Amino acid sequence: MKEGKIFFVTSNQHKFSEAERILKAKGINIAHHPERVEEVRAEDCATVAREAAVCAYEKLKKPLFVEDSGLFIDALNGFPGVYSAFAFKRIGNEGLLKLMKGKEEKERSAKFVSCVAFAGEGKVKVFSGECLGSIAEEMKGKEGFGFDPVFIPERSGKTFAQDVELKEKVSHRKMALMKFAKWLKKESRGEK
Amino acid sequence: MKEGKIFFVTSNQHKFSEAERILKAKGINIAHHPERVEEVRAEDCATVAREAAVCAYEKLKKPLFVEDSGLFIDALNGFPGVYSAFAFKRIGNEGLLKLMKGKEEKERSAKFVSCVAFAGEGKVKVFSGECLGSIAEEMKGKEGFGFDPVFIPERSGKTFAQDVELKEKVSHRKMALMKFAKWLKKESRGEK
Repeated sequence: MKEGKIFFVTSNQHKFSEAERILKAKGINIAHHPERVEEVRAEDCATVAREAAVCAYEKLKKPLFVEDSGLFIDALNGFPGVYSAFAFKRIGNEGLLKLMKGKEEKERSAKFVSCVAFAGEGKVKVFSGECLGSIAEEMKGKEGFGFDPVFIPERSGKTFAQDVELKEKVSHRKMALMKFAKWLKKESRGEK
Repeated sequence: MKEGKIFFVTSNQHKFSEAERILKAKGINIAHHPERVEEVRAEDCATVAREAAVCAYEKLKKPLFVEDSGLFIDALNGFPGVYSAFAFKRIGNEGLLKLMKGKEEKERSAKFVSCVAFAGEGKVKVFSGECLGSIAEEMKGKEGFGFDPVFIPERSGKTFAQDVELKEKVSHRKMALMKFAKWLKKESRGEK
């Protein structure tokens, strides 16, 4: 790809704004295509993202990417995982904290995973990022969205919702988007 | 359809045995095709079942049905709903009870929904059944499977897992399968 905007297909305005800021800092402009993407049921974000990107490309026929992310809590066998958005809408942070009630600090480990899937003419690529951390004892902070108020990234005493600057430095989505940006730059220079 | 067995495509042996008993009593023999069906992400069982049946038929090219069911808890905005199997594997009955902790009796209403989707040559039909009830304060009973130990059907003081005979009379799956059986009988008589 040499020119033209890349569309981020997502129905989540927060995700779009976050990605826009991160990619802009790398000199990449994106446009919002606010469509709900069709999702397969799979137990990993990479499969969900890849299938969704392929499906969206078949419809839109424009270079685009989608993102799928999830919060995987060890003590809950990876719940809510790929169904994080669904679980968030239904049981919210309150529900998650109830499920974690009584778990000691060492049992509260969790990770956020993000997969960015790009689809263009004859090309599909998936970039993933992780952020390790733990589940807070209570909700803290008002920034961010989703499970941000209960997720404390490693080596930080604050939740993503308390420290959105840190989030945009170390988040799973940031990691995945940075890999994507690096690849895009190479592609635009025509490197293999 | 005039003859030949119909395949129940499911990876859940419990579901197969339950359906086999219910349909046998109606003079219908089924065979087990123990494949995992591909599932779309949708927020209702009917869509999930229909798509899965179509998808399975494209592969197997034999008359078949699939079943999708879920437990919808009012106080949890319909959670775990269409993701019941996923949630059961991750958080189990214990997790569900934690989420319901502190909810009074009138806030414990729930329903089980089942959708049976049949796919054959040029035909797709969905049959649904519901069973209203409530979530128990604690697990009770050892029969059945899944969330049976915490679901008390209406007008019963016992969970599905305590009274499997009652379950097989009033369950959501029973209701859906009975509609399916009625339709099959009509079809086999060549009625419209």
